[in-house]
Amino acid sequence: MKKHQRELLWRVIFKADTRAGKQFDILLLIAILISILAVILESVESLNAEFHKLFKVAEMIITGVFTLEYILRIIVVRSKQQYIFSFYGIVDLLAILPFYIGLIFVGSQSLMVIRVIRLIRIFRILKLSRYTKAANTIMLAIRGSLVKISVFLFGVMIMVLIIGAAMYLIEGKEHGFKNIPTSIYWAIVTLTTVGYGDIAPQTAFGQFIASIVMIMGYGIIAVPTGIITAQVISEQKGSVRSDCNNCGKKNHAPDAKFCQNCGQSLNSDQT
Amino acid sequence: MKKHQRELLWRVIFKADTRAGKQFDILLLIAILISILAVILESVESLNAEFHKLFKVAEMIITGVFTLEYILRIIVVRSKQQYIFSFYGIVDLLAILPFYIGLIFVGSQSLMVIRVIRLIRIFRILKLSRYTKAANTIMLAIRGSLVKISVFLFGVMIMVLIIGAAMYLIEGKEHGFKNIPTSIYWAIVTLTTVGYGDIAPQTAFGQFIASIVMIMGYGIIAVPTGIITAQVISEQKGSVRSDCNNCGKKNHAPDAKFCQNCGQSLNSDQT
Amino acid sequence: MKKHQRELLWRVIFKADTRAGKQFDILLLIAILISILAVILESVESLNAEFHKLFKVAEMIITGVFTLEYILRIIVVRSKQQYIFSFYGIVDLLAILPFYIGLIFVGSQSLMVIRVIRLIRIFRILKLSRYTKAANTIMLAIRGSLVKISVFLFGVMIMVLIIGAAMYLIEGKEHGFKNIPTSIYWAIVTLTTVGYGDIAPQTAFGQFIASIVMIMGYGIIAVPTGIITAQVISEQKGSVRSDCNNCGKKNHAPDAKFCQNCGQSLNSDQT
Amino acid sequence: MKKHQRELLWRVIFKADTRAGKQFDILLLIAILISILAVILESVESLNAEFHKLFKVAEMIITGVFTLEYILRIIVVRSKQQYIFSFYGIVDLLAILPFYIGLIFVGSQSLMVIRVIRLIRIFRILKLSRYTKAANTIMLAIRGSLVKISVFLFGVMIMVLIIGAAMYLIEGKEHGFKNIPTSIYWAIVTLTTVGYGDIAPQTAFGQFIASIVMIMGYGIIAVPTGIITAQVISEQKGSVRSDCNNCGKKNHAPDAKFCQNCGQSLNSDQT
Repeated sequence: MKKHQRELLWRVIFKADTRAGKQFDILLLIAILISILAVILESVESLNAEFHKLFKVAEMIITGVFTLEYILRIIVVRSKQQYIFSFYGIVDLLAILPFYIGLIFVGSQSLMVIRVIRLIRIFRILKLSRYTKAANTIMLAIRGSLVKISVFLFGVMIMVLIIGAAMYLIEGKEHGFKNIPTSIYWAIVTLTTVGYGDIAPQTAFGQFIASIVMIMGYGIIAVPTGIITAQVISEQKGSVRSDCNNCGKKNHAPDAKFCQNCGQSLNSDQT
Repeated sequence: MKKHQRELLWRVIFKADTRAGKQFDILLLIAILISILAVILESVESLNAEFHKLFKVAEMIITGVFTLEYILRIIVVRSKQQYIFSFYGIVDLLAILPFYIGLIFVGSQSLMVIRVIRLIRIFRILKLSRYTKAANTIMLAIRGSLVKISVFLFGVMIMVLIIGAAMYLIEGKEHGFKNIPTSIYWAIVTLTTVGYGDIAPQTAFGQFIASIVMIMGYGIIAVPTGIITAQVISEQKGSVRSDCNNCGKKNHAPDAKFCQNCGQSLNSDQT
Repeated sequence: MKKHQRELLWRVIFKADTRAGKQFDILLLIAILISILAVILESVESLNAEFHKLFKVAEMIITGVFTLEYILRIIVVRSKQQYIFSFYGIVDLLAILPFYIGLIFVGSQSLMVIRVIRLIRIFRILKLSRYTKAANTIMLAIRGSLVKISVFLFGVMIMVLIIGAAMYLIEGKEHGFKNIPTSIYWAIVTLTTVGYGDIAPQTAFGQFIASIVMIMGYGIIAVPTGIITAQVISEQKGSVRSDCNNCGKKNHAPDAKFCQNCGQSLNSDQT
Repeated sequence: MKKHQRELLWRVIFKADTRAGKQFDILLLIAILISILAVILESVESLNAEFHKLFKVAEMIITGVFTLEYILRIIVVRSKQQYIFSFYGIVDLLAILPFYIGLIFVGSQSLMVIRVIRLIRIFRILKLSRYTKAANTIMLAIRGSLVKISVFLFGVMIMVLIIGAAMYLIEGKEHGFKNIPTSIYWAIVTLTTVGYGDIAPQTAFGQFIASIVMIMGYGIIAVPTGIITAQVISEQKGSVRSDCNNCGKKNHAPDAKFCQNCGQSLNSDQT
């Protein structure tokens, strides 16, 4: 294969700025979705009994396509090693590996479920699409508040541990709080307001503590919400502010007349 | 029917700017509410046993009224085809069709529930009312953040799929996770903090994963909230402020008459 | 009783600006709390069996105090009729009535629970306290967004009705959705993410619809949150803005130099 | 021990600004985490049966370490009394006491769970760490809105009491609402959208009231969220902006060097 052919193929496979590149992405997307659907439906016994062969054939074809794609990617990419050990390189391998392992070792059926990993490949395709901007805003908001959210969740963790240990003492084995891990599980179920009801306090005092935990969970959910909302708002403002022509300083307030960095008038280009 | 009569009737039926038009709307609203109440109460066995005849008569009268209204709408409207195939045209037809089908085919009782579709007709009446402004603000906020919310929900979908497949492997059929669709259903029930408890993890590892899912669900609810809140706030600011013609100062309050920066009248362009 | 005596007594009972008035309020608060505690504990069978007499005596004394207070209020107030038919006048009467009815009609035990109405009387006392400001902020935020929240809840209502009717058709009597009211109840339980689990969909299609309802409920909770948050923020800002000395126009932006109403410099008082 | 030695040791134990101080903190952190893990795993019967001896030995060593640390802290600290009766002094004591009590009184096994109190000691170590800033922001936001949140929760409490009493009357003992405390517990479970489902209304009217409670709970969660979000936003703004000495322009961005209104250097007062 000549160099410019490899270049072209690389562009089709890794980029979406040509017509062929876009078609390639759409094809891949469809293949991924069919493959995922097959994994899901195969797990339903009644469907598997009836369409077992169809699922197998679909699986074979799609894995074939993905294998071909994987090999092509290795061929056209410049730094082969870098691709193979990159995040998407590993995902691409994991997307086809379960099939081949299933061929060699009989009984490794459950491994097939790992194929849902193919879902992650959707993100690569979406990366090239117009939804990127909205996704970026969300990612930025989450990343910008990650430290605060982590600290918050760390506090929640410690609370949940102490509540779990307390409830283990109060309710005990006879009421379903059979050990501290289970009690912690109950505390998380309660604090996050999920409330399965598979474990529920039965003593008056246990219900009293549970009530406090619930009200706490109901109240402190405001904290991550407040953090992320403030983040989103401050980002939105940031994107509106104008730049300085003199020193390039960004993010001036909407009513700023002079650059806050160098003192240059911000409207100098209009005069 | 003469043209100006048809014009008048059209105004009464389709608009709410005349007294007769308002009365027509209120009458229709009452008919819809009675009809919906009848559908709901009819489904309660004890009530249906006792008041079966009453429900039948009410249904007959109201369907008669709605049929008359439907025919009138077709008569008075200029472009008949456009109305019939419009969203509300189809809703109007679906609101009366189940009754007539029920007359022809015996046993199509369950079809009668489709009559709740009549509820949608309420929106047409409300469209003309004073609640429009508040509803518009909400719709604008939702529409303005729709792309971001969709991207967020898409991410949630993929998470839910992977979690569902993982829990199917971890917990398996014997603990209620009988197939991947059911596991995904459980993942949604858990992530959204609904937590029915009809399916709940029973292995220690399953409960551990479930705990992570719950805390994730508890944390990421902040994301749509942040997005919509930022949207509502930016709308409140954006929709109400105007610029100064003299100095270019932006973001004046909605009731501002003079520029807050240079003292110039904000209405000077209109004089 | 002389006029100035009645005036004094009126001030003690209805106001909290004298030392005696404050002591009266605290006494009343304690009486209310004891009374509520008695109602609650009396409902616990084991406690009632043991302390039945104590509860009866406490009830008698407290009702006596409340009756005396009620009579005093009628005596000292100027417009007796206005007080008796005011909101708190009726609450004051309802706070003592169940006891006297219980004396006349044997077996009206359950009426006694109405005594919890006495809780409402706490608000009258708190009205006079320092927590008023925070409570006012909250009330203002709720009132300011009431129309929007109502429109939102109305939309939720219609959604819940349609979902309820649909699930009644899909799941049917055999899966617990025995009639439309019950189905609507389930829809509310699910949409609000409460999720008791007493009724849960069992067909695949029902679970699919339920999943959509849950994700919707998870997403749209952002709407009231966004509305109220925007309200709280705009209120906070409003209280910060300065007034014009010339025309009295309020709520100028923090960086305003001229009154937006009359064009007067906002800093004119400082020159 | 000489004075400068004690000073040095004090710095290592109480501060984290030396290398030895940091290592001491990390060692302590590891000891705490192992200790907590031991408490948790010990409560699991199957693990305790197998590793009972290991848990005992680990417990003995760690308590030894903590006891040594406690004694050292008392020795190096200047005001011994102040430390012993300080919050962390008591926590330090409670972290080792259960072990010694367990040695003396056989059968006080359940006391061992109190060891989870050691978790609180993590906060002392974290106090010295880089996560402090994020934690401070969260604490400030919570503290700044504490009065409002308390008033809100007080209102919720009264609502929950009245709802609980009402549901006790409506549903009664036969449907699980056996007394008012239990009914209040149910009301909290429902209002906070936890929804265990161990108690659920079964009469039509009870389900109607429950529906209203759920929608209320779904709606009013917006209130604490709005309060805290407004708090976080106002803090972000407040903490970062400075005023201009020349023209008095407020609210400059944190990295502003020149006034955006008049071009004056913002640091002019420091020169």
